[in-house]
Amino acid sequence: MTLDEIILARCSVRAYDAERPVPAEHIAALGEAARLAPSACNSQTWRFVAVTDRERIHRLCDEGMRPVIRNKWLRDAPLVMVGCSQLDLVANTLGSKVTGIEYFQLDLGIAMEHMALKATELGLGTCWIGWLKEDAIKAILGIPDRVRVMALLAVGYAKEGQPPKKRSRKPLRKILFSDTWGQSFPERE
Amino acid sequence: MTLDEIILARCSVRAYDAERPVPAEHIAALGEAARLAPSACNSQTWRFVAVTDRERIHRLCDEGMRPVIRNKWLRDAPLVMVGCSQLDLVANTLGSKVTGIEYFQLDLGIAMEHMALKATELGLGTCWIGWLKEDAIKAILGIPDRVRVMALLAVGYAKEGQPPKKRSRKPLRKILFSDTWGQSFPERE
Repeated sequence: MTLDEIILARCSVRAYDAERPVPAEHIAALGEAARLAPSACNSQTWRFVAVTDRERIHRLCDEGMRPVIRNKWLRDAPLVMVGCSQLDLVANTLGSKVTGIEYFQLDLGIAMEHMALKATELGLGTCWIGWLKEDAIKAILGIPDRVRVMALLAVGYAKEGQPPKKRSRKPLRKILFSDTWGQSFPERE
Repeated sequence: MTLDEIILARCSVRAYDAERPVPAEHIAALGEAARLAPSACNSQTWRFVAVTDRERIHRLCDEGMRPVIRNKWLRDAPLVMVGCSQLDLVANTLGSKVTGIEYFQLDLGIAMEHMALKATELGLGTCWIGWLKEDAIKAILGIPDRVRVMALLAVGYAKEGQPPKKRSRKPLRKILFSDTWGQSFPERE
């Protein structure tokens, strides 16, 4: 697949085939894709817990999510990647205080999206989840207090017959400007 | 190029050929790659100003950067993508207060890395820059107060004869755990 095909094919899958596990070499490939991501001052603050243990996944679903969203579908995901940040001193403590940019949050987004794109290429569905209960997830997975839990990525083979909905997007002219704010980038012919 | 090749080839380029502009269709392709990125509640908070005007790029370099880092090389970049976030109410104001996760920061990382990967595929070098002066950049580009400036991405053709340094990375076993924190994912044979 080309990068364009991968980016186009990626979408949020919320119905997984619980009987079809993600092969270990695929999990390693997701980790490797994230490992090569750039980060502020090369601080590499990201850590990932690849959860495949069925009981722990059920607990993540039942105890680790915020209640508003219906997310019982997460119980069927054969793999949940738990994206964590272990903050360093220079970029992410001192640096963030100066600029107000939380570099570790951008960096987690970058690295975990490498995973999502790689998963798509491998024929796997994914879904980012950010509406979570950090303390509960830490307790379930033994994550230390000083580490932040930033996002989960559900990963697995999509259940047949339940195609995910494609979400709409703003047109390019609304998000891409030319030289100054608000001046739409010229559209292609 | 395969995704693995793109991820491997991406690195931070800090020496650009100032005489070789980035074609407009490539700039649009970068915008399109970002446009299709996922975001919290599909909030699509990212906005990008594609700066190619030479005088503005010089001002971004001279006034918009924090002084510690030597970044005069930015003057030679033929394109600077300025990554901004226009916060929405639900996910990024109310939601962030509950979880402490700043979804717009993760989302900017995700979308702008789509750009960086697409640029790599197009033969362009990139460099993320986060050590910036938000107020100065807003003044140079007419960005409204309510919008956050989160990162710049320098884009252009690498100057010949100045190959970028590859940065080291932690080994996979240090960043990828299996089911519980600290238990390294089994390495491949």
